[in-house]
Amino acid sequence: MAAPIDFYFEFASPYGYLASLRIDAIAAAHEREVVWRPIMLGAALKLTGGGPNMNLPLKGPYLLRDAPRSARLADAPFTLPPLMPANSLAASRAFWWLDAQDHDMAKGYAQAVYHAHWGEGRDISTAEQVAEIAAPLGIEPAALLAATRDPAVKARLKEETDRSLARGVFGSPFVFVDDEPFWGADRIDQIERWLATGGW
Amino acid sequence: MAAPIDFYFEFASPYGYLASLRIDAIAAAHEREVVWRPIMLGAALKLTGGGPNMNLPLKGPYLLRDAPRSARLADAPFTLPPLMPANSLAASRAFWWLDAQDHDMAKGYAQAVYHAHWGEGRDISTAEQVAEIAAPLGIEPAALLAATRDPAVKARLKEETDRSLARGVFGSPFVFVDDEPFWGADRIDQIERWLATGGW
Repeated sequence: MAAPIDFYFEFASPYGYLASLRIDAIAAAHEREVVWRPIMLGAALKLTGGGPNMNLPLKGPYLLRDAPRSARLADAPFTLPPLMPANSLAASRAFWWLDAQDHDMAKGYAQAVYHAHWGEGRDISTAEQVAEIAAPLGIEPAALLAATRDPAVKARLKEETDRSLARGVFGSPFVFVDDEPFWGADRIDQIERWLATGGW
Repeated sequence: MAAPIDFYFEFASPYGYLASLRIDAIAAAHEREVVWRPIMLGAALKLTGGGPNMNLPLKGPYLLRDAPRSARLADAPFTLPPLMPANSLAASRAFWWLDAQDHDMAKGYAQAVYHAHWGEGRDISTAEQVAEIAAPLGIEPAALLAATRDPAVKARLKEETDRSLARGVFGSPFVFVDDEPFWGADRIDQIERWLATGGW
């Protein structure tokens, strides 16, 4: 089996959410695994100058129109959350805590968080909100809350974020197929073709 | 016939070039005209914080990989020019000078400039370089050079740029279909569907 695909995303990103709905099926059709890698995009957004798109003049209003429109086209559940961008720190830390136990469970958790946040429009900015979303998956709320304060878990997320920066990640979603970088939910079709053809 | 489509672009943008190769055919298939509107993106890029993408860390190197890759996928001639981003002031002014005479001629001129700049990798940063590209179309070099210094022509470009900002344009290409905004060469398929269906 060929090398897995790295899927970098930020929970606060609607385009990461839209990509998350397709990436596994596309990879599976070409016998690839997908490694989900939530990161904190703040550092990259500082480096590229503008900060979160939602907070920017011109870009912010456009995003609020384009993201729901892209979701409707994809037939994806979509509700704008009350706070944008959400603070994704607790959600991301909980992911890496789960990932150390079982990547598939962590992936299922990430899908639940994305669905709650962008599908249902629920806030995910506090560890308590994240624990509530994770509980139906059998994830113990008290353990999740403790994990988000665990120095080792904090370090794990920081390490993943630093590594993503070193690989050139500056947006969400950001996908590597055999080190070939693809930025944006609108590159999913190119990813599919790259997998099918081996590149062009 | 339905209202024309507004196609905003920046000559220094490779994605504007890629969109320019498809926009007229897509519009024509749905019985629409396209009004080409070159603008200076500098002001918008200041407002959204980051400056020209090519100059940014992380984003710049990605763009230099993604733009040629997208061009290869589209089977479009593509050569990275020596200076990026080019100074598109003279090229844009000459467009609006020609446009005041004949929009189709101005469009043909824009296609020639885009082809020279992104298809052949020629610089377009001086009025002399632009005049040389325009000459084979029967555009008198001395008249073009004079036009790029004409206060009325300068004012016309500034007016178009200001109007684009007021409409929310912050990138290239940026297309309006009946006031619905679409940013990016990767929205061309959505534009096509919007034209076919009237929206979703």
